[in-house]
Amino acid sequence: MRYELYYWASIQGRGEFVRLALEEAGAPYVDVARTDGGEERMLALLGDDALAGPPFAPPYLKAGRLLIAQTANILQFLGERHGLAPKSEAGRLWTNQLQLTLADLVDEVHGTHHPIASILYYEDQRREAKRRAADFVATRLPKFFRYFERVLAANPGGPAHLVGGRLSYADLSLFQVVAGLLYAFPNAMTRTARQHPHVMALHGRVAARPRIAAYLASGRRLPFNQQGIFRHYAELDRQARRGRPATAAC
Amino acid sequence: MRYELYYWASIQGRGEFVRLALEEAGAPYVDVARTDGGEERMLALLGDDALAGPPFAPPYLKAGRLLIAQTANILQFLGERHGLAPKSEAGRLWTNQLQLTLADLVDEVHGTHHPIASILYYEDQRREAKRRAADFVATRLPKFFRYFERVLAANPGGPAHLVGGRLSYADLSLFQVVAGLLYAFPNAMTRTARQHPHVMALHGRVAARPRIAAYLASGRRLPFNQQGIFRHYAELDRQARRGRPATAAC
Repeated sequence: MRYELYYWASIQGRGEFVRLALEEAGAPYVDVARTDGGEERMLALLGDDALAGPPFAPPYLKAGRLLIAQTANILQFLGERHGLAPKSEAGRLWTNQLQLTLADLVDEVHGTHHPIASILYYEDQRREAKRRAADFVATRLPKFFRYFERVLAANPGGPAHLVGGRLSYADLSLFQVVAGLLYAFPNAMTRTARQHPHVMALHGRVAARPRIAAYLASGRRLPFNQQGIFRHYAELDRQARRGRPATAAC
Repeated sequence: MRYELYYWASIQGRGEFVRLALEEAGAPYVDVARTDGGEERMLALLGDDALAGPPFAPPYLKAGRLLIAQTANILQFLGERHGLAPKSEAGRLWTNQLQLTLADLVDEVHGTHHPIASILYYEDQRREAKRRAADFVATRLPKFFRYFERVLAANPGGPAHLVGGRLSYADLSLFQVVAGLLYAFPNAMTRTARQHPHVMALHGRVAARPRIAAYLASGRRLPFNQQGIFRHYAELDRQARRGRPATAAC
């Protein structure tokens, strides 16, 4: 069976968390909106009022007869099918909990450039974005990083993974969040990276996994850009106190 | 076994979604932070660096040896244990998907009064809140309501429930969101309520369920207030075009 992933063709966005899981699993999939007429098919599905179990927004995944939306929900499904999460109830709950916390962080990143309304341009909410990004960099970013560093340090399976002693989709997602933050906030991340060695080591290890490395080097990996969730506006990024900006593994 | 719910003692907040599920299930639980010294125990747990599998923030639930955080994650666990979600994979995924979409709406409601930073007072971000709330009322609130109305209308099990022909935790959560919005945005909700009869009927039916009605009438149900997620600031609520403001069933 070949999965069908429905997500915007021009950005990594929330779809990227699903793409990374599919790539690591080696699961065959088609990125529908990047095929001919695919974006129209994606939107037709969103607008189909007769559809039982409709998605509210992309990403969504077709898996045979299942149509699954919400990033964390899709990952839970893929994690179970492809060994990207523990089989035990406690392990599944914990992996999902980490993913939902990462999703909260991703929402806050989006809020740094769109604090007023998603339908407005950045330029129309720039003043508010500066205020919000200043708080994000000063208080929220460090709080989330402290949390994930602490999770890794206290993991009974060792600090190489978030969940036990094996890779899970939460690791892939933490990699993606770090990669995005390095793109969006290179200055703020200089200090943050130094202070959170376990998180940064995980980012590097995931990037070096054979299937992920091959994916990142391929045309399937879209570059970060100014339409996605992780955007770089120099005016929103705190100036580095010292040293060179941190750089991404991808 | 008696569950232990950890959440702020003075607000409904995100903990209320868990309380409603526990109440509907008739499950014994203690609302820890509302007991003597409970809030200190809640915070001690958050600050325990040696804890494997720590929560990022309340609410969290202790269930025997399990410690589960993130509202949607807790509800998925309770739904499975107490028959508040279908047993099939498709049904479980769909219920979780709906809950995550409701969580997105709840985040957007919070953003209407805190568009800049959670640590700042409302009064310090009032100007931005007015802009954000205007967009929420004009575009986001109707979009979410249209979605849930459409889900109910297209449900093969009938429009009385979100998932199949039986109550699920997603119904309880939709009730709570509607109740909160009626408190926070009574004017904007006048028109919204009229246009979404299935959603409003569900809200009324859930409020009338014996265990929920008993809960809502009890001292265990905290009133909505100006510290929670759903807050009423008249200046953020659009004036009703006509008719009287909508009223809540609780």
